[in-house]
Amino acid sequence: MPTTVKRNHNKHQLERTIALLEKGSINDVRLFIHSIYPAETAHIIESLEPLEREKIWSVIPPNVMAEILVKLHVEVATGLLKITDRKDLIKATENLESDDMLDLLHTLPEPLLSQVFDSIAEVERSRLESALSYDENTAGSIMSLDFLTIRGDVSLDVVSRYLHKRGEMTEAIDNLIVVDRKNHFQGLLSVTSLLTKEGHLKVSDVMSSSENGIPYQMLTSEVALLFEQRDMLSAPVLSEEGQILGQISIDHVINIIRNEEGHSLMSRVGLDEEQDMFAPVAVSARRRAVWLGINLFTAFLAAWVIGLFEATIDQIVALAVLMPIVASMGGIAGSQTLTLVIRGIALKQVNDANAGRILAKELSIGVVNGILWAVVVTIIAGLWFQSMSLGLLLGSAMIINLICAAFAGATIPLALDKMGIDPALAGGVLLTTVTDVIGFMAFLGLATIFLL
Amino acid sequence: MPTTVKRNHNKHQLERTIALLEKGSINDVRLFIHSIYPAETAHIIESLEPLEREKIWSVIPPNVMAEILVKLHVEVATGLLKITDRKDLIKATENLESDDMLDLLHTLPEPLLSQVFDSIAEVERSRLESALSYDENTAGSIMSLDFLTIRGDVSLDVVSRYLHKRGEMTEAIDNLIVVDRKNHFQGLLSVTSLLTKEGHLKVSDVMSSSENGIPYQMLTSEVALLFEQRDMLSAPVLSEEGQILGQISIDHVINIIRNEEGHSLMSRVGLDEEQDMFAPVAVSARRRAVWLGINLFTAFLAAWVIGLFEATIDQIVALAVLMPIVASMGGIAGSQTLTLVIRGIALKQVNDANAGRILAKELSIGVVNGILWAVVVTIIAGLWFQSMSLGLLLGSAMIINLICAAFAGATIPLALDKMGIDPALAGGVLLTTVTDVIGFMAFLGLATIFLL
Repeated sequence: MPTTVKRNHNKHQLERTIALLEKGSINDVRLFIHSIYPAETAHIIESLEPLEREKIWSVIPPNVMAEILVKLHVEVATGLLKITDRKDLIKATENLESDDMLDLLHTLPEPLLSQVFDSIAEVERSRLESALSYDENTAGSIMSLDFLTIRGDVSLDVVSRYLHKRGEMTEAIDNLIVVDRKNHFQGLLSVTSLLTKEGHLKVSDVMSSSENGIPYQMLTSEVALLFEQRDMLSAPVLSEEGQILGQISIDHVINIIRNEEGHSLMSRVGLDEEQDMFAPVAVSARRRAVWLGINLFTAFLAAWVIGLFEATIDQIVALAVLMPIVASMGGIAGSQTLTLVIRGIALKQVNDANAGRILAKELSIGVVNGILWAVVVTIIAGLWFQSMSLGLLLGSAMIINLICAAFAGATIPLALDKMGIDPALAGGVLLTTVTDVIGFMAFLGLATIFLL
Repeated sequence: MPTTVKRNHNKHQLERTIALLEKGSINDVRLFIHSIYPAETAHIIESLEPLEREKIWSVIPPNVMAEILVKLHVEVATGLLKITDRKDLIKATENLESDDMLDLLHTLPEPLLSQVFDSIAEVERSRLESALSYDENTAGSIMSLDFLTIRGDVSLDVVSRYLHKRGEMTEAIDNLIVVDRKNHFQGLLSVTSLLTKEGHLKVSDVMSSSENGIPYQMLTSEVALLFEQRDMLSAPVLSEEGQILGQISIDHVINIIRNEEGHSLMSRVGLDEEQDMFAPVAVSARRRAVWLGINLFTAFLAAWVIGLFEATIDQIVALAVLMPIVASMGGIAGSQTLTLVIRGIALKQVNDANAGRILAKELSIGVVNGILWAVVVTIIAGLWFQSMSLGLLLGSAMIINLICAAFAGATIPLALDKMGIDPALAGGVLLTTVTDVIGFMAFLGLATIFLL
């Protein structure tokens, strides 16, 4: 009788692996790892430190190595490839599906890549080479070259007999691709029709021919949205002339969504979505240092702005106490707008056509919240320093900064996107630069004019 | 001949809709909307302002209304429900799959919910009622009640005949669920086996009985990982006794991944993933105000810390100029650690078992980058203000804050997760509170001790 998986399945597997590793019985580790799925092993490997990873890797039989490698982040995979016997690896690639093979080839560092390539049969190699030539992040780069095509003029019975004769299929399929003599896409025959419709019917009478062919240059983010919107499990990829080039399946689409979303999150703090949690300290520190350096530049810029008003602060020290409040609130409000717009761009819900309306709405929110919090800070600061004019000054600077923050939060990502720069990566730094500079400038500038 | 979709499909559809709306020809809008998928209409509706939404909604035929409603964010759907004829709506629900029906029922506000419920046939209603009773965010809450079960002791031929007799299926299926007399899960018969294996074989000999049954209490985030790891298209949901309760299909899993990831991103700035881009200004402003208020509190806390050192700043104004640098760099470095750990927790790759190692690694990075940037700021500030001691002070405060930031960035999300608080929501505010307070305290405190 089949058992069900544990409720907190992944945590359980990780804890079990760590416990077995600590007990030091490599044979128990082997038995456990052999009992789980390759992707689960990949998940565990990523959650462990490099030395433990190598221990796990040493118990993996060559025939599943490739399947695990394609599920690992490139960085983690590269680390393990260094300690992998080349013969094992070449053997491992023999049974890979073409889409997994392509994934793996993208991972392999140069000398290894050529070796694996040389081991692939001539015909397959040229197929793979042409697939590798498609631009990254396009439909062509994620499609599989293994798919079933049939002709429209045969009966369902003939298709059924053909499938029985062909025998075992490795992956689940939902549709057979119907093509004409010249390999042009005609439509899709769903497996459910094959199972439920009468056998004497012709494929062309049963197939669906609504528009589901994906152009090979379509961006993967668009492909993902299309799969979500149409509840598709697979889709044919077509050339400009409408010929079948390959097929995209839902498991690749899920990876895209996960990576795309992880990317927006991680790049906000200058990290890569491929980040290996347990990369060597030197490697991680160097990567993060770059981001800290960029931010240090903007921090000094803000400091320089404050420096312009040193004389003012020298006379009224309370300004130094209150000034971070203006900058900080601007940063927070701006980030809200920025995040909303970046997500809208990613989900293709924000573009030129509606950008103006979003800007108008965000500015209105900026005005409303600017006034609201201006009143609050005016009262608090006024009471704290027993100076209504200081309070009013803080409130006015707050209104100015919150409106500018809304403007910057909406326009920066749109402008970056237009320039082909990733708004998730650069948007945050640019925004804080604006809100810091304007925040300090408005508060200290107004103080210089009205309080001195 | 089928046409392929446009390369930038969603942008194209949105622009086209806006153009037609602006042209004012509601009939052209109708024709266009009728030519696209319900989920695509939902996507367009979300990208438009309320008044335009209503125009689109007015051309939607009742029989696709429900399908569009379930694809809309709750907030947007609620707005449209207000202007929907109740009879239309009840009619619309008639052909919904049970999982979509459950989604819709979750969306409906109270009086409407009862009305729709009353219109559902008795048997179906009690099925739905029990399904609605499962905890949100668990497998039970996202499963469909429509699935096919077969017995293991029949031949594949019998199954084929049964399916042909049963006729048309609305959704693609990859597996038939094999059960015993008492509805206990026995295994899965893949549709591909049915299409490729010889018809005289028995179901029980062909089915796979490896562990793929999902307990109904499993968290949806775990369910999503399981689907990703095992490349599943559907999975049976089981009771504690191993009986079939329902089935989860991949299209729901994709929604979970999208929402989960959107949630991590949006809640970092205090927004809800269900946020409607074009919600009324008053509604949006109020929501964001809450977050600004929380952050204002921490900003005043930081200001209070600065205030403790007013006398020091009064003597050395340069401190006011440089102090935001320490706080800002701490915030940036801490956010990097925080983001990495929050993502690790969400992907179930960080938990008690390896938390110690992550903390150790992050602290090491904090030390390395602390020293590196301390040297840089010491030199810059030293030259700027012609004071090596001021530079050294800034550098020392930087080291202290970057190490504390690493510690806070790693421990805050783990602690929040343990307490059942969403680290994505509260983590950032807590972190900046720590890095601001420690940053100002370290810099101004050291200055008070050594420079006065």
